[in-house]
Amino acid sequence: MKSINVKEFIDTFSSDESYTSAEQLKNVMDILNDVRQNKDQALLDYTSRFDGQELDEIKVPLSYLKESYEQLDEDIKKALVTAKERIEAYEKSIKYEDRNLGEFTYVYRPLERVGIYVPGGTALYPSSVLMTVIPAQVAGVKEIHVTTPTFERNNITFATLYLLGVENVYTVGGAQAVAALAYGTETIPKVDKIAGPGNAYVAIAKRLVYGDVGIDSIAGPSEILLYVDESSDVDAVVYDVFAQAEHDPNARTFLLSESEAFIQKVEQRMEELIEDQPRKEIIKHSVANNHYPIVDTRENLIKVSNYIAAEHVSVQHEEEDAIVDAIDYAGAIFKGKTTCEAIGDYVAGPSHVLPTDRTARFSHGLNVNDFMTSHSIISLTNETYQSIVGDAAIIADREGLFAHKASLLVRKED
Amino acid sequence: MKSINVKEFIDTFSSDESYTSAEQLKNVMDILNDVRQNKDQALLDYTSRFDGQELDEIKVPLSYLKESYEQLDEDIKKALVTAKERIEAYEKSIKYEDRNLGEFTYVYRPLERVGIYVPGGTALYPSSVLMTVIPAQVAGVKEIHVTTPTFERNNITFATLYLLGVENVYTVGGAQAVAALAYGTETIPKVDKIAGPGNAYVAIAKRLVYGDVGIDSIAGPSEILLYVDESSDVDAVVYDVFAQAEHDPNARTFLLSESEAFIQKVEQRMEELIEDQPRKEIIKHSVANNHYPIVDTRENLIKVSNYIAAEHVSVQHEEEDAIVDAIDYAGAIFKGKTTCEAIGDYVAGPSHVLPTDRTARFSHGLNVNDFMTSHSIISLTNETYQSIVGDAAIIADREGLFAHKASLLVRKED
Repeated sequence: MKSINVKEFIDTFSSDESYTSAEQLKNVMDILNDVRQNKDQALLDYTSRFDGQELDEIKVPLSYLKESYEQLDEDIKKALVTAKERIEAYEKSIKYEDRNLGEFTYVYRPLERVGIYVPGGTALYPSSVLMTVIPAQVAGVKEIHVTTPTFERNNITFATLYLLGVENVYTVGGAQAVAALAYGTETIPKVDKIAGPGNAYVAIAKRLVYGDVGIDSIAGPSEILLYVDESSDVDAVVYDVFAQAEHDPNARTFLLSESEAFIQKVEQRMEELIEDQPRKEIIKHSVANNHYPIVDTRENLIKVSNYIAAEHVSVQHEEEDAIVDAIDYAGAIFKGKTTCEAIGDYVAGPSHVLPTDRTARFSHGLNVNDFMTSHSIISLTNETYQSIVGDAAIIADREGLFAHKASLLVRKED
Repeated sequence: MKSINVKEFIDTFSSDESYTSAEQLKNVMDILNDVRQNKDQALLDYTSRFDGQELDEIKVPLSYLKESYEQLDEDIKKALVTAKERIEAYEKSIKYEDRNLGEFTYVYRPLERVGIYVPGGTALYPSSVLMTVIPAQVAGVKEIHVTTPTFERNNITFATLYLLGVENVYTVGGAQAVAALAYGTETIPKVDKIAGPGNAYVAIAKRLVYGDVGIDSIAGPSEILLYVDESSDVDAVVYDVFAQAEHDPNARTFLLSESEAFIQKVEQRMEELIEDQPRKEIIKHSVANNHYPIVDTRENLIKVSNYIAAEHVSVQHEEEDAIVDAIDYAGAIFKGKTTCEAIGDYVAGPSHVLPTDRTARFSHGLNVNDFMTSHSIISLTNETYQSIVGDAAIIADREGLFAHKASLLVRKED
């Protein structure tokens, strides 16, 4: 094991700042324009070309969703219901309410129509369905449209959508799915906002349609930052590292401690346990390239934590309150030795769709409030208006906007 | 005058959905990459090429800001202070506070470093400085960096920045300014988020850097939707139309009423007053191409209001409460005959940086909370953990994520 200190880390660490090529942009632009022009036919063509699927229809029949759900075992049905109920309760608890501020009211309204992108492919993640659809439902969104490149007639993604009562599901993925949601086709209506993680092409497409529709954040590889001390449980910490590493060879794990000795214990135990892991190939790859043990002082470790702004931060430490309080930037923080990150992936409550790759420095995890929009209602008393209209007219005059000034003064009392 | 009804309107109205060309994207990408590579030198080159300015230095000396302020007349100084105080008070009143929810805490933190783009060119708008910088200051942002293509030694933009205590000001504009803020140069540090309106190249650049930094919304031409009835003051309504139309030949004005007769009165009075307007050429152009009088039933007018989701909505109507309540999507709503839109441009309180071109259907006006980020802190009791860990493990197992399952079960009590 080679642990590094903070200075060394910041000097050598580079995050995945996008170097999207002009060619990639052009390819995605071409797909977007093709779907805008040729609509459903373009979706069928791309699905044939990229996914090797000849679709009869783009929309999934409700009977497939229902059958998928009915085929689930009772234990997974019960687990999904537990997750659903806890996620709903959490989102309700953080939902913004209108504020009456006298001459101002600040109001929130659910979006009318939302598109959710659910990744498909070889692995299916029912938890991602729960963590994106439920916040939209709690917001009160009128229509939810889900696209997913999932082509089996019965599968757990469809089952989970059925459990949530979602009926508008389309078997399309990639940039073409984003284009369909952004601009509409004969089958898929134009939505107001698109949320949910996807691959690199989905990310570029979301960036390019932003402004025509809203988007949530752009997702990168998963990551965890563990802040641990001698009181932490070695095996628990090791499994927390493995749980993140098993997602993807690019998943990143940061292991921070003020104790070199403890870090050494964890690293040694990792070597012992790694061979028994069912996903050991991915874990080994990820740990070899993207595992960062960092030993330094409290002050420096806090600094690096805020620099990284990790998607998941887990603080397992005797002084957890002070540490959690000092970490300003994180996707979500898991406090204490019991509340591990994996419980948050499934059932704790807050959405597991979280900002990655240092974007927690400016963005937050998906939640109910991202599916609402808001505006202020301004209604000044005549007394207030008369007391400030003169100043407003002076600024209008200085900006050379004379009709602004006239519209102010026509309401001024002598 | 030709007034139209809602069905006719929706069939014929097209919003400015972006048809950015691949060539424009490539040009902006080239600027972004050039600034990433050549930093300050690239900024100097582009400023020479696009703005015809040979800069000695990119950063504005504090003495220029101070001199600019000192040269202001007392009446405009006083007006700017009135605006500053009211904007600050409003932003404080809507700032989010941390929420303690038992096993969850939802916390807000100010961004560390923010870039504000202030448009320059022929006209300078001190109000835009107030409406972008103050929300960031109230949020508690540690460093604010302002770029503006403004090359006069003394000007009202610099004066207003001085009034607000902003010291980091750079005379750079366009896509190159966005690149500098997103990636950093020798003089301009990389920021966490970029806010503020700019031209089409600024908009494309913001879209392309999104993900590497945060951005606020992408600005289009200004617009107002007036909902009026026979009780409204004809001249006041006419000046409200002119105030919006004078911004720009592309500014849009929607005049909605259930009364054809009243609309006719307004249109007739517009013709009488238009010749006296100092900015009549712009107003005429804008009214000829982008003025939409619409007469229909209440139900249909509400429908079209929510369809347009106008940047500014002004309701001057005997039943203003019912109408304001039914409008779900708007940048901001000005309620009543006294609270005209122009008072909001300068001194009412809420920022005048508002979503345009139907984007209020998914986004909101700039405010203090856009300069904060947030995260949840999850800390379950052992009792809660033990009651749900079994369900979490079942989902992990079904998703094939076995280290997730192990990290859950290592904390399970028998």
